[in-house]
Amino acid sequence: MPAWKEYFEDNGSRYLEELCDFLRIPSISSLPEHADDVRHAADWVADRLKVAGIEAVQVLPTDGHPVVYGQWLHASGGPTILIYGHFDTQPVDPLGLWSHPPFEPVIKDDRIYARGASDDKGNMLAPILAVEAMLKTQGKLPVNLKFFFEGQEEIGSPDLPDFISSQRDLLACDLILSADGGQWEKDQPALVIGRRGLCAVQIDMKGAAGDVHSGTYGGTFLNPIHALAHLIDSMRSPDGRIIVDGFYDDVQALSAAERKQIAQIPYDENVYMRELGLKQLGGEPGYSTYERAWIRPTLDVNGIWGGFQGQGIKTVIPSEAHAKITCRLVPDQKPDKIVELIAAHVEKHLPAGTAAAVKKLAGTADPYVIPFDHPGNQTARATLKELYGKEPYITRMGGTIPVSGIFLKYLNAHMVNFAFGLKDENIHAPDEFYRISSFKRSLAAYCMILERLGS
Amino acid sequence: MPAWKEYFEDNGSRYLEELCDFLRIPSISSLPEHADDVRHAADWVADRLKVAGIEAVQVLPTDGHPVVYGQWLHASGGPTILIYGHFDTQPVDPLGLWSHPPFEPVIKDDRIYARGASDDKGNMLAPILAVEAMLKTQGKLPVNLKFFFEGQEEIGSPDLPDFISSQRDLLACDLILSADGGQWEKDQPALVIGRRGLCAVQIDMKGAAGDVHSGTYGGTFLNPIHALAHLIDSMRSPDGRIIVDGFYDDVQALSAAERKQIAQIPYDENVYMRELGLKQLGGEPGYSTYERAWIRPTLDVNGIWGGFQGQGIKTVIPSEAHAKITCRLVPDQKPDKIVELIAAHVEKHLPAGTAAAVKKLAGTADPYVIPFDHPGNQTARATLKELYGKEPYITRMGGTIPVSGIFLKYLNAHMVNFAFGLKDENIHAPDEFYRISSFKRSLAAYCMILERLGS
Repeated sequence: MPAWKEYFEDNGSRYLEELCDFLRIPSISSLPEHADDVRHAADWVADRLKVAGIEAVQVLPTDGHPVVYGQWLHASGGPTILIYGHFDTQPVDPLGLWSHPPFEPVIKDDRIYARGASDDKGNMLAPILAVEAMLKTQGKLPVNLKFFFEGQEEIGSPDLPDFISSQRDLLACDLILSADGGQWEKDQPALVIGRRGLCAVQIDMKGAAGDVHSGTYGGTFLNPIHALAHLIDSMRSPDGRIIVDGFYDDVQALSAAERKQIAQIPYDENVYMRELGLKQLGGEPGYSTYERAWIRPTLDVNGIWGGFQGQGIKTVIPSEAHAKITCRLVPDQKPDKIVELIAAHVEKHLPAGTAAAVKKLAGTADPYVIPFDHPGNQTARATLKELYGKEPYITRMGGTIPVSGIFLKYLNAHMVNFAFGLKDENIHAPDEFYRISSFKRSLAAYCMILERLGS
Repeated sequence: MPAWKEYFEDNGSRYLEELCDFLRIPSISSLPEHADDVRHAADWVADRLKVAGIEAVQVLPTDGHPVVYGQWLHASGGPTILIYGHFDTQPVDPLGLWSHPPFEPVIKDDRIYARGASDDKGNMLAPILAVEAMLKTQGKLPVNLKFFFEGQEEIGSPDLPDFISSQRDLLACDLILSADGGQWEKDQPALVIGRRGLCAVQIDMKGAAGDVHSGTYGGTFLNPIHALAHLIDSMRSPDGRIIVDGFYDDVQALSAAERKQIAQIPYDENVYMRELGLKQLGGEPGYSTYERAWIRPTLDVNGIWGGFQGQGIKTVIPSEAHAKITCRLVPDQKPDKIVELIAAHVEKHLPAGTAAAVKKLAGTADPYVIPFDHPGNQTARATLKELYGKEPYITRMGGTIPVSGIFLKYLNAHMVNFAFGLKDENIHAPDEFYRISSFKRSLAAYCMILERLGS
């Protein structure tokens, strides 16, 4: 048994308590009233890195939420690996659907419930603890290591391009391991070779100067909610294609090899539907479910509001109506171009007598692809095979880690997914949880991959 | 000068203070947490009737908010007039758009600002005070009088059909005067000969069992907000017609005489647009603005919500989306039939893979018409002409007073609009106000019409 394995057994319950402490910090990056909590989480991470034996630990400012940096650079001649994760979380609404307060972690059997448990605090804490075990038991690490944790992933990392481009020397590395992401199933690893990009807009409709009585004025001018519904419906054909002009123009066609790689992954539509609680799937025609989820772009309204939302009725024609839209993007779509296409679509389809403003929201990410035969990928593949006793599936993910594209651009280093969340863990939703077995496995996994990378 | 006129001059400031007291009661009928305030308003009205010299005053229970009754029946051989109004108010949201707290009345020049000032507390208090002046100065009234005030007009008077049908003897009368409604302009009276009816539904869309991550699942099933937008947009043609099957089937065509009557009322599109803060009007083609507002039916979404409404972005596909819809109805449309047509439309147009429930909401009213040559109308016309020095316009109103159809059905008595609100007074909206000059004029108006009705 490696010495670090023994260390994990001796310190397992302390590690779990520390994860609970971390989860108690309501570090919601999208809500200004939680900015101090995000800062508090940064300080917590910095302190934890120091305890682990990491050097030069600093909480560094950006124009928004801070980042945390630390290093251990005594593996002379060895490669330099940067480990990435994020200590911010999604908001918690709708709060009423949570079984427990989201920032009071509850452990039940193999699960620890809390906002951020899977995405990403449980995942990002593991490499810190793994490194502590190696340093405490062996006094050294097999590679040079840098830690870089951010507090704005859930809002699209708006300040990271500036920060990373200005800190190329500090962050220079050969490979990045992402402790944000996941595996396929409890007993099935996955190697993720692509992630979709993201862009976000808000549409603000304006009708009359104020809310007016629907009896007095109803029928004489266009209700802005109707105009908004028309705009949203005009963006999507009944069969599920996005019909914003030019939307698919830059999309790379899927090669036969890529489609084959995706088709090799077992898929059971009934299981997929059951997980979602649905009786029918749908979407762009001509593509499989995984293709639609991973490598075809989307346009989704994430929120809509306008007028009266209380009990009973209120007979108003509201003055305003609003929608938030995000698109998941694939190579070679460009976020800013898609935002422009949506704005042009709104202008073209805007019903007469209403006004619409299309505002770009923070949350931009380029689509990201890492070559399948990249050495970092192959090391991760071998480690996962050893850990699970199975070849990983070669997958993509539909979600975004904006920083992957930023790292590639400014550090010229690719990022390998090396995280252990599973897709039923309610990330971004009520009752988020992380599996304690995944947490424990990830501790060993980080020791094993660092050893392989150093050999 | 009639004695009552002198009485008004002596008591004017007390009357205004009493109106302020009445306006301080937050009697919002649609919000369960304000039920006690509605009851408090009923008690306030009952006390005020007693002070005025009205007899047999009672607060009577219904299955919902109570009603207030009172009478003075000593005009032997004279007609019996029932005066109607309501002491409940609309909700106040969006609260942030109010210049003052809505239940702390503020007087500025000729205006008294508060929720309910125009609709309907300022209007309904006037006949009570008018009768007080007549009784205190003359010791009697020219007609037999009954007062009937309700506390559920703003939620569609759901309990009034049962109450009125069970109290036909108590409420029996020859004519009803409505102290809920308005005049045309400050210096121009109007005789209202019709009001639109109302029906209300809520559409509840359900997608996946819970909110899910739009990266992980986006593209694989239909977002319920998109499905709701599709349903709403499918109810209305781009040119403004309602295209719910059967919606116009029972609508009476406008006669040439009716169109001529409406066309005689001065209309300035620029003024109308300026009042609304709009640059363009719109709606069902082939009809004038007043025709669309008064005698053509509508379908309006009064509120819509689903998913994330906070700052920034949250990349979810929400589990639910909701819309509240009301229709303004015209003769001979039936509210329940229209609700059924909407439910059938939703079923027919529901996109595959989503579920929708259509729930009828309280707020039903039949369209109402009073014959132009009805004697009550003619008495009101003569009174208004004397009061303003001008013939009233013959108009209709787009809004609903549900009780008018209920009175006609169970008491076989027509209702004449005799109220003094004006259409710029922000009823159902932030910064509602009532004109003090209208309040004073209405005191005299009620004395004058009661004298005419008794002669």
